[in-house]
Amino acid sequence: MANDHPEALGSRVVCQIGLVVRDIEKSAEAYADLFGMEMPDWSLTAPEERAHTRYRGQPTEGRAKLAFFQLGNISLELIEPVGGPSMWEEFLETEGEGVHHIAFRIEGMDEQVAMLERKGMPLLQRGDYTGGRYAYIDGTPQLGVILELLEND
Amino acid sequence: MANDHPEALGSRVVCQIGLVVRDIEKSAEAYADLFGMEMPDWSLTAPEERAHTRYRGQPTEGRAKLAFFQLGNISLELIEPVGGPSMWEEFLETEGEGVHHIAFRIEGMDEQVAMLERKGMPLLQRGDYTGGRYAYIDGTPQLGVILELLEND
Repeated sequence: MANDHPEALGSRVVCQIGLVVRDIEKSAEAYADLFGMEMPDWSLTAPEERAHTRYRGQPTEGRAKLAFFQLGNISLELIEPVGGPSMWEEFLETEGEGVHHIAFRIEGMDEQVAMLERKGMPLLQRGDYTGGRYAYIDGTPQLGVILELLEND
Repeated sequence: MANDHPEALGSRVVCQIGLVVRDIEKSAEAYADLFGMEMPDWSLTAPEERAHTRYRGQPTEGRAKLAFFQLGNISLELIEPVGGPSMWEEFLETEGEGVHHIAFRIEGMDEQVAMLERKGMPLLQRGDYTGGRYAYIDGTPQLGVILELLEND
């Protein structure tokens, strides 16, 4: 990806809005009703030994149930924390239900994470999924929101 | 707009993410730096006599400074409350800085507001802008987020 601004995020396209919810089936039902769409199935994130989940630097058993609504060219991700400490659980405990992150599809995860750390936006959590990896970045003091970086292979 | 689901929102496309911030110039600078974009100018919403702003049913002198970043086909709206009571001010006081709403472009404002009220999602604030009108709907108990409806003439 060409990047004319090496000290800028490698994407300006929000590809996803992620919401932490208490009960994924109940929330998915409300969204399906709102949009007149089918109820999506939910899936469980992989365990730590496969996802290599690191929450504030430490391996964690924290996982989540995920459900997606494809809305035009944005996906709405519903996230119900389960199983142990994670940013999702921390967010639900401190903020309650609501928008957890806005996501950008990038290339060069380590470089982008390092660039954001130089801007004073530290890494909160990272992990792998089939075909790619994600990182949550704490942009709340400057941007009012957590950023998610998504990199597919 | 064709709507196969009369009891569903007339759009599935998120056209905007709105964030309430404390200092619009500081936040706009952080976003401009993040994306490698120019600092946008901010503008002030119209006064009540032109915008017909109704906050929880009552006319209000509450206004806001607004600044926009065009990101692909979503706009990011930064909102700094000024001048009096409003959903923006209420949100900043109760939630702090963060994502205030996700917005959908619809047709038939009164019908859509009534339909959402039937789903238990009441109107929080409405107003006019040049060429159109907006409404904030309280979707937080069911959806975890405030919805904004935008209707252009």
